[in-house]
Amino acid sequence: MITRADVESAATRTAGHIRSTPVAQVEPDLVAPAGELWLKLEFLQHSGSFKARGAFNRILAATETGELPAEGVIAASGGNAAVAVAYAAKTLGVPAEVYVPTTTPAVKIAKLRQLGATVLRHGSEYAEAYEAATKRAIETGALFCHAYDQPEICAGQGTLALELLDQIGELDTVLLAVGGGGLMAGVAAALDGVVRVVGVEPETAPALHAALAAGRPVDVEVSGIAADSLGARRVGTIAYDVAVRTGVRSLLVTDEQVVDARRLLWDRYRVAVEHGTAAAVAALTSGAYRPASGERLAVLLCGANTDPADLVG
Amino acid sequence: MITRADVESAATRTAGHIRSTPVAQVEPDLVAPAGELWLKLEFLQHSGSFKARGAFNRILAATETGELPAEGVIAASGGNAAVAVAYAAKTLGVPAEVYVPTTTPAVKIAKLRQLGATVLRHGSEYAEAYEAATKRAIETGALFCHAYDQPEICAGQGTLALELLDQIGELDTVLLAVGGGGLMAGVAAALDGVVRVVGVEPETAPALHAALAAGRPVDVEVSGIAADSLGARRVGTIAYDVAVRTGVRSLLVTDEQVVDARRLLWDRYRVAVEHGTAAAVAALTSGAYRPASGERLAVLLCGANTDPADLVG
Repeated sequence: MITRADVESAATRTAGHIRSTPVAQVEPDLVAPAGELWLKLEFLQHSGSFKARGAFNRILAATETGELPAEGVIAASGGNAAVAVAYAAKTLGVPAEVYVPTTTPAVKIAKLRQLGATVLRHGSEYAEAYEAATKRAIETGALFCHAYDQPEICAGQGTLALELLDQIGELDTVLLAVGGGGLMAGVAAALDGVVRVVGVEPETAPALHAALAAGRPVDVEVSGIAADSLGARRVGTIAYDVAVRTGVRSLLVTDEQVVDARRLLWDRYRVAVEHGTAAAVAALTSGAYRPASGERLAVLLCGANTDPADLVG
Repeated sequence: MITRADVESAATRTAGHIRSTPVAQVEPDLVAPAGELWLKLEFLQHSGSFKARGAFNRILAATETGELPAEGVIAASGGNAAVAVAYAAKTLGVPAEVYVPTTTPAVKIAKLRQLGATVLRHGSEYAEAYEAATKRAIETGALFCHAYDQPEICAGQGTLALELLDQIGELDTVLLAVGGGGLMAGVAAALDGVVRVVGVEPETAPALHAALAAGRPVDVEVSGIAADSLGARRVGTIAYDVAVRTGVRSLLVTDEQVVDARRLLWDRYRVAVEHGTAAAVAALTSGAYRPASGERLAVLLCGANTDPADLVG
């Protein structure tokens, strides 16, 4: 369980390491009859996604308590979480090992190596790389950085919400995409009792939706257009607890709606985001979320580690 | 000649029609030993570039004085200026005719038609389309909207600078790309005596640089990577006057430096801009502009009507 106080500590701890990302107020006609629409441009964050917030918080918290070993940090995944850990580790002068499945594209491995991480290929899917990484962390004593289900990771992601509240005085609702739920957990903890949080998932990666329906985190099948960033097979226990405690609402959108929303963001605002991020916008453009008259909405544009080649033409 | 008062009038006139675009503060290591680096995210503007500011101001100013004819507005070019005029005209319910050279790509013509403009193809290059448009404006009485050399156009573009001053209290220098000079004129007029303005051009489109060297606007050869947005053959008379009066500094960069800067903006900030816009950043990354210790810099990211397909890989 994490609370607003954890997020506030994370904000203090990570200040000076993360970018304060701007918001853009745009016409609310897209979400009529809502009154205001704000875009949080978090794709400008170090490493191209919000994940840098949690990564810095995890490493800095361990440094504070003297728990950061000389062996450094270890992570699993070839996606945004691993890039963020590698980036934070490099910036802080800490060694990093990253386990990725053998299916990880060469370009992602090259990116991790460019950030100074030692990359180890293990197993044909994420679960095997994850298992190898946690085993290796026990052997070496390195600090394991989970992609979403650790208190410091979730609290770090939540700093985005405190920043948002500073930027926009009055806000009713925040929409965000959910994968393993680290961002959702931090944001919902930070905004509990102040702003409504709506988590959006593709129908092809419904970990939060299935957990809320089942009354506990359960495994789901994942596939589809946003599996690279939202494809956690099971929502985190921290995320599930926060979602239930704070009343996070869960919505599903189709892959086609995600593709359309991503294209709309480029056509209207010249913003290129990854498919996972576009899911949050798709809830608005598809009508899955219907705002009330005058409602003040913010959508988190939380990552852009994408190939924008298909946005034009 | 235009002054800060003209820009202030434009800001009042266009309020509610243009987007206030955010700024992002990023690490100054890119421009060391400078103290601060701000990016003005103007590519979020309606129509994908700052040109919407001038287009709205031109049409609204004519509406105020009763000079907007029923025949509407007319423009020449297949680029950002025409798209902005078509967008503003559509929003304001005004008919628009746009003359483009026959070499204009079908995708740009489709975009203009999608915005409700009547598109007329004339001549093999911009100068011929321009001549046909001005002739047609005299025949029909429609309001001609120049791409850069009209007071209302320049003053409208300058509203970006007033917004920037509101957003950043203390600023030493603004860097911006120069084509025909409409943006530079408005910004330099607005910031005269307050903030230094540096205009950057590719060596392959040096209209301002050549004019300042010659002591008057002169024709230059234009070519290269950013010719679509910065390829004016002669800087505007208003722009030249403002540049001389306010002491705008002019710098050149190579096409290769522009390409590198555009790629850096994507790699570091996940921002996809057009090559013309990247010229301003290239002045910093190439060392053409060398900031003083502690200098506070803003770079205008003024357009993103680009195909981002080449940014990854």
